[in-house]
Parts: sequence; structure tokens; C-alpha cells
Amino acid sequence: MLPRGRPRALGAAALLLLLLLLGFLLFDWRLRGAAALDGDPLAGPRDRNPSDCGPQPPLPPKCELLHVAIVCAGHNSSRDVITLVKSMLFYRKNPLHLHLVTDAVARNILEMLFHTWMVPAVRVSFYNADELKPQVSWIPNKHYSGLYGLMKLVLPSTLPAELARVIVLDTDITFASDIAELWALFAHFSDMQAIGLVENQSDWYLGNLWKNHRPWPALGRGFNTGVILLRLDRLRHAGWEQMWRLTARQELLTLPATSLADQDIFNAVIKEHPGLVQPLPCVWNVQLSDHTLAERCYSEASDLKVIHWNSPKKLRVKNKHVEFFRNFYLTFLAYDGNLLRRGLFGCPSQPPSGAEQLQQALAQLDEEDPCFEFRQQQLTVHRVHITFLPHEPPPSRPHDVTLVAQLSMDRLQMLEALCRHWPGPMSLALYLTDAEAQQFLRFVEASPVLAARQDVAYHVVYREGPLYPVNQLRNVALAQALTPYVFLSDIDFLPAYSLYDYLRASIEQLGLGSRRKAALVVPAFETLHYRFSFPRSKVELLALLDAGALYTFRYHEWPRGHAPTDYARWREAQAPYSVQWVADYEPYVVVPRDCPRYDPRFVGFGWNKVAHIMELDAQEFEFLVLPEAFTIHLPHAPSLDISHFRSSPTYRGCLQALKDEFHQDLSRHYGAAALKYLPALQQPWSPARGS
Amino acid sequence: MLPRGRPRALGAAALLLLLLLLGFLLFDWRLRGAAALDGDPLAGPRDRNPSDCGPQPPLPPKCELLHVAIVCAGHNSSRDVITLVKSMLFYRKNPLHLHLVTDAVARNILEMLFHTWMVPAVRVSFYNADELKPQVSWIPNKHYSGLYGLMKLVLPSTLPAELARVIVLDTDITFASDIAELWALFAHFSDMQAIGLVENQSDWYLGNLWKNHRPWPALGRGFNTGVILLRLDRLRHAGWEQMWRLTARQELLTLPATSLADQDIFNAVIKEHPGLVQPLPCVWNVQLSDHTLAERCYSEASDLKVIHWNSPKKLRVKNKHVEFFRNFYLTFLAYDGNLLRRGLFGCPSQPPSGAEQLQQALAQLDEEDPCFEFRQQQLTVHRVHITFLPHEPPPSRPHDVTLVAQLSMDRLQMLEALCRHWPGPMSLALYLTDAEAQQFLRFVEASPVLAARQDVAYHVVYREGPLYPVNQLRNVALAQALTPYVFLSDIDFLPAYSLYDYLRASIEQLGLGSRRKAALVVPAFETLHYRFSFPRSKVELLALLDAGALYTFRYHEWPRGHAPTDYARWREAQAPYSVQWVADYEPYVVVPRDCPRYDPRFVGFGWNKVAHIMELDAQEFEFLVLPEAFTIHLPHAPSLDISHFRSSPTYRGCLQALKDEFHQDLSRHYGAAALKYLPALQQPWSPARGS
Repeated sequence: MLPRGRPRALGAAALLLLLLLLGFLLFDWRLRGAAALDGDPLAGPRDRNPSDCGPQPPLPPKCELLHVAIVCAGHNSSRDVITLVKSMLFYRKNPLHLHLVTDAVARNILEMLFHTWMVPAVRVSFYNADELKPQVSWIPNKHYSGLYGLMKLVLPSTLPAELARVIVLDTDITFASDIAELWALFAHFSDMQAIGLVENQSDWYLGNLWKNHRPWPALGRGFNTGVILLRLDRLRHAGWEQMWRLTARQELLTLPATSLADQDIFNAVIKEHPGLVQPLPCVWNVQLSDHTLAERCYSEASDLKVIHWNSPKKLRVKNKHVEFFRNFYLTFLAYDGNLLRRGLFGCPSQPPSGAEQLQQALAQLDEEDPCFEFRQQQLTVHRVHITFLPHEPPPSRPHDVTLVAQLSMDRLQMLEALCRHWPGPMSLALYLTDAEAQQFLRFVEASPVLAARQDVAYHVVYREGPLYPVNQLRNVALAQALTPYVFLSDIDFLPAYSLYDYLRASIEQLGLGSRRKAALVVPAFETLHYRFSFPRSKVELLALLDAGALYTFRYHEWPRGHAPTDYARWREAQAPYSVQWVADYEPYVVVPRDCPRYDPRFVGFGWNKVAHIMELDAQEFEFLVLPEAFTIHLPHAPSLDISHFRSSPTYRGCLQALKDEFHQDLSRHYGAAALKYLPALQQPWSPARGS
Repeated sequence: MLPRGRPRALGAAALLLLLLLLGFLLFDWRLRGAAALDGDPLAGPRDRNPSDCGPQPPLPPKCELLHVAIVCAGHNSSRDVITLVKSMLFYRKNPLHLHLVTDAVARNILEMLFHTWMVPAVRVSFYNADELKPQVSWIPNKHYSGLYGLMKLVLPSTLPAELARVIVLDTDITFASDIAELWALFAHFSDMQAIGLVENQSDWYLGNLWKNHRPWPALGRGFNTGVILLRLDRLRHAGWEQMWRLTARQELLTLPATSLADQDIFNAVIKEHPGLVQPLPCVWNVQLSDHTLAERCYSEASDLKVIHWNSPKKLRVKNKHVEFFRNFYLTFLAYDGNLLRRGLFGCPSQPPSGAEQLQQALAQLDEEDPCFEFRQQQLTVHRVHITFLPHEPPPSRPHDVTLVAQLSMDRLQMLEALCRHWPGPMSLALYLTDAEAQQFLRFVEASPVLAARQDVAYHVVYREGPLYPVNQLRNVALAQALTPYVFLSDIDFLPAYSLYDYLRASIEQLGLGSRRKAALVVPAFETLHYRFSFPRSKVELLALLDAGALYTFRYHEWPRGHAPTDYARWREAQAPYSVQWVADYEPYVVVPRDCPRYDPRFVGFGWNKVAHIMELDAQEFEFLVLPEAFTIHLPHAPSLDISHFRSSPTYRGCLQALKDEFHQDLSRHYGAAALKYLPALQQPWSPARGS
């Protein structure tokens, strides 16, 4: 029982106690906040785990939208950003809005990537980095990030005026925890603070690294800008735009250039206005720079939050614990991004564009349908990473031709030979897992032949589902071809050494495009031998053919696929000649880039090329065989993708169903003219047949 | 200022306030604890996040050792346990001690796995499930887990007497959070409570699922035993052994058998002794059974902790959110277990056996050494998962032969043909990533030929490092061969259909083992054609040879490797004949299982077989060529692993260094006799040469 009669005293005491308690909590927080500046500045968080109960503020409300800004330019940074985003998505439980400041290359890549990734509760906005250049290009800068690093300075004026808070990240960041915990640190800001930063974990700003080392001014060790919590509203209000420019101009009177881009300027501004900064716990930006002191941080904390690869050596940085950190990075590098398509329970959010229709279509499929796997594969939206490696678009030339093909990991060995045979531009779609994409990257880096070619564009289509989506892959490669003409090839063919030049000359001479709507046929041959001396000319090829060292393509298994090319006539031909479409014809052709797309319903193997040639014929393309052109198929073991299905009767049944549907669509598009194709479509497909 | 003169009143009031505060906290906890029994029993945790500040107890001290017990039997459960352990290790920050109750198969697999995994701060103890069988075999049980499920009941008497607490897990559990948070829930136990459980998330125990459905007795919906917190000390003290047996016997008077194994008995005991149980928050065992009500739990909580695949359909269970959960599971299924070899910062722990010497040896390597990659690869300890798929050891037969070979993903297509050619036991080492191991599993399941064979043992060696560890792979396959003889083959060879029978007959006739120390030579041929009709007899083979459709192996590139087999003599031979070792000889041979191991220093390509044959000769094996034996090499594209290195001069230089070291070792072992091999070892290796 409460003692009666002293209610006032008790009330006052209780109030006092509460105030004391509150005061203690606040005091403790300020201690922590300031830990990076007082005492040992690099010490880890004092508790085992900052999420221990104590003065940690609660996480943001369940469905609060968190904003993240990243500056990204070029092919390599785009790959880095994707790894960063994967790590962020893995741990996140909140909807996210990514604000990406990109150059044209990165925008192209990332727009396609996010569009096809279809991650629920992730919104992406793009901002044109080229437009921001004038705002920072006057600053001389020696840092490897170039102008782009400096763009973090202009985010308050670039991001939407209504956006009050944002987390700004460098591309070389890896999350090891939920970003909502980082967002929660905004709650620590005093009324005046506008920039949350982790202290720099090296002695750089102390200016004692070498003789005459003269860094930009900073408070103590200064701060690292790889992870920034920005109160945009307050910065705008405080006149940030003028503030940082004034400071930068001032310092540049005596300093020749920034060494660490935006970070030098942020530190100089903070030195002048220390009230702006809220120091963050060191675990939120564990810096693995060349001379890092980060060990003082992470050896105390068992709970790492964010890893920052801020050495120019990146993962190759020397550090006795680098293996530990690398394992986090490699986790997300190889992580199957498809697995991040999971939604957030109980957070209503706008589904990604197209996701709802897709969900409905998938829901309507019948799992008992023997062709269920086909239907499901057809509906699968594959994540697409175009120009995975650095790429120079070919100069605009009116008769130029891009070789278009698709492959999976088991045909990687073909690439070097292909590069030797085709000196022109190529657009190749690769069907890979995230882990295989990294193997592919190392493969190209290790090959002088491949590494030297900037005109080969590699587009990674991420694997999902049991059937090889051959025509979807072809369409990705075709859509990314940048020349007026395309040579639609397959990866196991090597073209004549002269083919690239010869095709361009032929296109010009035949007056394609303006006068004639034609598909140029490149006659196809095959060798059954592994070791094989590739013919340098048509004469040499004919000699090999006569000697039985070469055959016309699929001569033994399925001659109908190429018979209409009329090899006998080709032997003698001196000029291009026209041939007629016949059922099952599937030649390798050169067509304008805007030719019909491949029908994506044909997944797995069978009928995928035949249908395309049929559609060219329906569109009244003339088939013109080139007398000096040839391409040769090399032998290979059947791919794993094909061997699963060749022998299955279900597979054949499903293929027939696809063909029927294809014909219905043909009829819809081309009317009575499509009747011509009906007999061809009604023949049963046999495993030996064409593709 | 404190008002003076009323210190007593103030003191009393403060004390009271503190007591009230404490009381409130405790009360709130009990509410939570009981939530699963009162009100809506399946409701999620009331807060957004149980780690929000509130009455959540702190995590265990930084380096506290956590104990986990799992019952595991057979090949398939062993694979499941590994996925569970990967998910646990991914999030854990504490040292762990795993107590594994296993049958002989699982012990064999898991002992090798953990030994080679070398995860710091993980200790593993094994307990013999076969010895526990008599304790539970009297209980009639209809559950698919069989006797093994029931063994959880006897853990208090099986685990070491000094072990007071343990978390018990089913094999079909996936962690999505740090197990230390689960361990922390022990702190909620009242003095009497001994078993922490999550409520069962289905209506099973309500007994209304179908007419005459009569489940075992339970409190309300009962509890699920996929995740158990056990206070072993208290259970022992409370006479658990008698308690559960008494209850089970009692119930079995009227019930014919358990339906859900141990879970029925746990529930019946708890019904009688409700004071034993501490209900746990539902997120710690989200049950995806066939008729699960788990949505009520997870739709509230954004923070899932543990997923339980407790439907017999496992990942194929029908559930509208199954994709979400499957993504967690697939994350760890495909996760590179090597990345979990990271240590715990600041927790001193006994390094795994051999880890320290390994660390020292690695630290002594010189990164500038051009052969650094070779040295590093040689020292790499690969994780090994023996008998990855169900396997029946061959019956003990004195002349039986196991085919031994190794492969990576790009040779998977060879397996079916190999099975058709070799009807006997095989021991195959597969060099795969974790993700590839799953593709391999699906490949075997989809192949009737492979799925039908129980005598083929597949041993997965997990990829790590840039060079193919060919001899380490061969040694794994060789060590797991269970017959007295082995045929040391390569994966791109198909043996004569009769070879298996012929070898056994020859071994018997030649009286190998007891009388003669011999290596039986199987002459090797090659075809350069893909499509090729395999000869049914020596006569047919000779005809193909004469027709130029077959060659002796490496006839064009490196005839020396097999010339000593003396093919001319073989054509005519009617009986086995002896041949002499000559430099570069590398025949395919049949030898006793206890033959010398391959030298693991030869990684990548080159010299790996030649060195082994040299060692057989040094050990005075007689080379006996079999007149009716043959094996044929099929053509294939060069593997990615080889194409990286064939052309590199560094590679050749390093290989020479390896050969020098190999010869030093030979001299050490065999003394002056090894001088014979010096010239062979001093010849430079050329890329066309043998392996």
C-alpha cells in the first residue's frame, strides 16, 4: 500500500527521480556521441552490442520509407553499387527509396537492372550527374573518384526540396546489418546538427604521415564521408551551398587541390562549424584504407555494421583481418539477387511496374499442366545487367554489323576464338548466376585477347528457372546492338576471318536498307573434329569439304534446316542469289537491327530459330545467299541445359503446344498469308531436328 | 536543489518507484511469455521488433559458449544439417558447441565435413544414435522421422552431465537471426521452468482436423518441438527420464502410436506438468506445415527469427508466402561455406585442429613469388562432403574394383555414359561450389540412369582458389573407395563395356594381392569425333583403329605418355604381359586400394599422373598390360580451369619447381634408387605434354 498523507512529497520525489533518470540517459548518450572526439577517438562502442538495451533509440516505425543517395558513374562503379545494394536489401526490413546520381552509362545499366529486378518496396530515382558537373568542376581534385566524388556536396540542392533526410553512401560500402539501425541515429541529432559522420580511421588529417604532408583542415582525425547522415532540410536552411563553396575557395587559396575529394571539403566546413556534425559510432563505417586504425574499433565491437573498402586497392588491401571482411563482401558479390525479390510483410507498397500482372499470370498457371515449367519459364522476368564490363559503343557507320549471340558458362572458352575471327562489334547475352558472373569477370581479366576488346558488349541475364530462355537471351543481345545491321549467330560457330569486312561491303553494294528488305544468308558448315585448321578462304573450305574434313551444317542429323541455302549453287556462285523459304529453314542471317524479335515463348531447345526465320519470311524479307560468306560450327559436348530435355516425350508435347500457339499468333498478325506455315508447324519435332 | 529535511520520505518514495518499475517490467514479461497461451495464441510479438528496447534481456556475454544439439541420421539429413548450420554460423557472434546425435552414415559425413571446414570457435561432439535406439524403440511411432525423432527425449541423459542448457533443433530449421538472441530467452525461465517451446502453429492438437482425429493430449494448440530450449540440469533433477516414460506408457494404453514422434510425448508431459514449460515468442519457430496458421505470427512481426520446414513436402509446401521463406533457405543452401571460416573478433578460442600450422605456413608464403598461387593452392584445405547422395557400400568381395575419378561441373554430362559402361562401384570426387552442388543434386535426380545407381559414391570437394587441385581430388575419391582394388581413371574416358567383369576375373586369375604386387595397365585410346559408335570388343576396336576412326591416346600430341604400353604387342597379345617404366609413362592402371596416394603438390595441370606412376615404379609395382582391356577418351572442349594456364610461361616455371621438390622427396624416400628418375624430372614440361 502507498503511505497515505504524503502525496505531494511523493509526487515531487517521483518527478525528480524521473528527471534524474532522463538526465542520466541523455548524459550517457552525449558521452557516446562524443566518444569519437573525446578520449580515445577510435575506441569501439563501449557496450558489446549497440542494440543492447540501453539508450539506443528504437528503430524507425515498421514501414517508414528510408532514403539513400549514391553517386555512381561508369561500368565498374555500377557493378559495385549493385553489390552494395544487395547487402543493403539482404538486411533491410523497411521500404527504400534510392536516389542515384549517375552518368549516362550507369543510368543505362541501373535503370534496366532495377526495372528487371522487380524488388518490392524499392523505389529508384535518377539524377543526371552530367548536369551537376559545372557545380563542382572548378575544384581541382586529385582523388581517384574524380569529379563524381565531389557531387556529394551538391546533394542538398539536387535532391527534391521536400526530402528532409537521406543516408549518403559511397559505392565501396558493404552492409552487415539493417540500414534502419543507421537511420535511427538521426534521432541523436541535436537541433543544430545536420551531418552525421564516423571519424576518419587513419592519421591522414593529423598531417604527420610524411614530411611536408599538408592535409586539409579537420577536427582531430577528421571524418570519413563514405557514410553520411544528412539532414538536408537543415543544411538548406543553414545556407550550405554558400557555406561549402566559401570554405573550399578559402582553402584553395593555399592548398593546390583536394586530395580526398568531397571529404576534404566536408572536413574543412566542419572545422569551421563544429556544431553541424553528429559523430556516429565507428562500427557504421569500418574503414579498410591502407593505413587503417580501424582495428581499434572492430576488435571491441563484435557487431560490425558497415564495411568501407576505401583503399584504392579495394579487396586487395593489406590488413591482417582482411579475410574476415572480404567474406562479407564476397557473400553479397556472389549472392543470387533473385532471392532479394521478397516483399516486406505487412508494409503495403506500390508493387514494381509489371509485377502485379506477372503475379496474376503466374497464379493462373496450372501446376498439374505437363507444360507448367514451360509456361512458368516464359513468364519469368530475368534480371538483366547490360554492359557488365567496360564497353565503347562503335562509331556510327552506315553499313556496320554487330555479331549477336548468347551463351552460358560452358561456352566461355569460345570467346577468344570468336574475337580472333570477328574483329567487329559484338553484343553477347550471357546466362549466368551471380557467382558465375564473377567467374566470367575474372576470365575476361585473365585473357589478354578479351581484355583488349572494348567493342564487345557483354550483357548478363541472371539465371532463373529450369529451362534455357534462348530467345529471351537473343532478344537482349539484339536490343543492345548499336550498329544498323546485325549478324544473328550462335556461340558455337566461328565465322570466316573475312566475314566482318565482307558483310559490310556486301551491305553497301547490295544497297540494303534503302532499296531492299533482305536477310543475307551466311552458309553454315560443321567440323566434327576438335583440332581443326580453319580455312582461310572459300577455296580452302571447299577442299576440306571434298576431303570429308567438313560437312554442311547438320548434314547427318537434319539436312533440311539448311538445304534451302543450296550448297551446290553456292559452290559455283560468284554473286548473291535469292532462295525461297521452305519449312524448317533456319539459316544464319544478317538483317537490320530493327528486325522482328525472337519469339520468347520458345524456351529450352527446339524451334526457336525456325520460328524467327518463318517470321522474317512472313514479313517478306528476301533471303539472299552471299557467295563468299561462311561460318563453321565447332563440336562440343551437349550442354547440361539441353541434355535434361532432349529425351523427354513431355518436352516434345509441350513444344507442339507452343508451335500451335505461335501459329495462332502468326495468323492474327499476317492473316491468310500465315496459312502457308501451317504444314511446317504441324510436323512433330524430333530431338535430332533443328533449333 | 533537493528539498532538504525530507530525506526519509524521498528515499522511501524512490525505492517504491523502483519497485513499481521493476514490477511493471516483470509483469510485462510474464504477459509476453504467456501470450501464446492467453488471448490469441498465435499472435505475433506485440512490438515491432523484440530487440527494441523494452524488457528484452541483454544478449549473452560476448564470448559465452552456446550449446546446440541436433539428431541426424542418413545422407539426406546430413545435407539438411549442413544448411541449418550454415544459417546459424552466418548470423552467430558467439562460440558454439554442436552436440550431434548421429548414425554411422551421418557421423562419417559430418566428421569429415567439420574436420575439413575448420570453422573457428565451433566445437563438435558426436553421440552414437545406435546406442540410444533401445531407449526409444519400444514406442510405436508413425512419424516420418522414425526412431531418430524420438531421441530428443533422451538428450538429458545422453549429453554430458555437466551440460546445463542446450538449444535442440530439428534438421529442417533455418535461422534468420543470431542464435544468441534465442539463447537469451533462457533468462525468462522461472525457477521451475525447464523447457522453452513455441506454440504449435496448426490446429492438430485441437483434434478437430477430421472426423475421429484423436491427437495426443496437449495444452491448447500444444507446442512444436522443432526448436527447444532445454534446462538439462532441471530436467535431470525433476526425474525427466521417469516422467516422460511414465506419461508415454500411460497414453499408449489408449493411443496406438505417436503421430508426431517426440512432440506428442513432450506435449503429453507438459499437459500433466504445465509448470515445466516456458512459451517462446512465435518468431522463433515459424512453422511451414501443410495447414499452418503461422501467418498470424509472421504478418505481425517484420523480424523473423527461425523458419521451420515441418511439412513432409518441405520446400514444396503450398503456402502463399512460401517464396519468401524459400529465399531464406536457398540463401544458405547455395552459400559458400568457406566464407564462414571467419573468426570471432575478441573471443579467444581453441583454433580448429591443424588451423594454426596452416596459418603459419600460409603466412610464410611470399606474395611476390611467381609461384605464390601454386603454393597457396597446395596448402588450401578444401571442405569435403563425402557421400553427398545416398550410397550403398558394395558387398565385400575379394576381387572387386572401384572406378576412381574426379570432375568438375563441365563434365557432368559424362556421368550417364560412364554408368552405362561401368556397372560396378565408383568413387567420384566432384569439385564444386555450394551452388553447383545443388545443381548436381538436381541433375542426378532428373536422370533415371544416375538415380538408379546406389553404388556410385559422389564426394563433393568445395572449390577454393584459382588452380584445379587435381591430385587432392583423386586422393579423396581414392580414400573413399571401399573395394580391395581401384581402377584409377579420368572422367573423359569410357571403359570397354566388359572391363569391370574382365578386371575382376583378371585380378583373380593373376593372383594379385597375395602373390604379385602389380599395376594392371588398361590401354588407352581416343576418338576425335563426337558421335561415335563405341566398340563392343577388341576386334571392333582394332577395326576402328585401322580405319582411322580411333587413335592410341594422345597419338598426335604426346605419344610418349602411353608408348611403353606397346600397342603393337597389345594387338596380338593373348595373355597379360609385363612392360617397363620409361620416363613420361602415364597409363591408366588398376592397383590395390592401399596404393600410394597422388602427390597433392601438383595442382592445376601437368605432371600429376606421371608422378604417381613414377612412385608406383619406385615402390616396385610390376606393370602388367591386360590384353582384352581398353578405355577410350572422348573429345571435349578444354576446361576453363586448364585454359587459364596452359599458355603461361610462369606456369611452366612453377611446374619445374614442383618437379624439383618432388624429386627431393623421392630421393629422401627411396634413396639412390630415385636417381633413375632424375632425367625425366629435368625435362621441361610443354603444354602439349601429358598430365
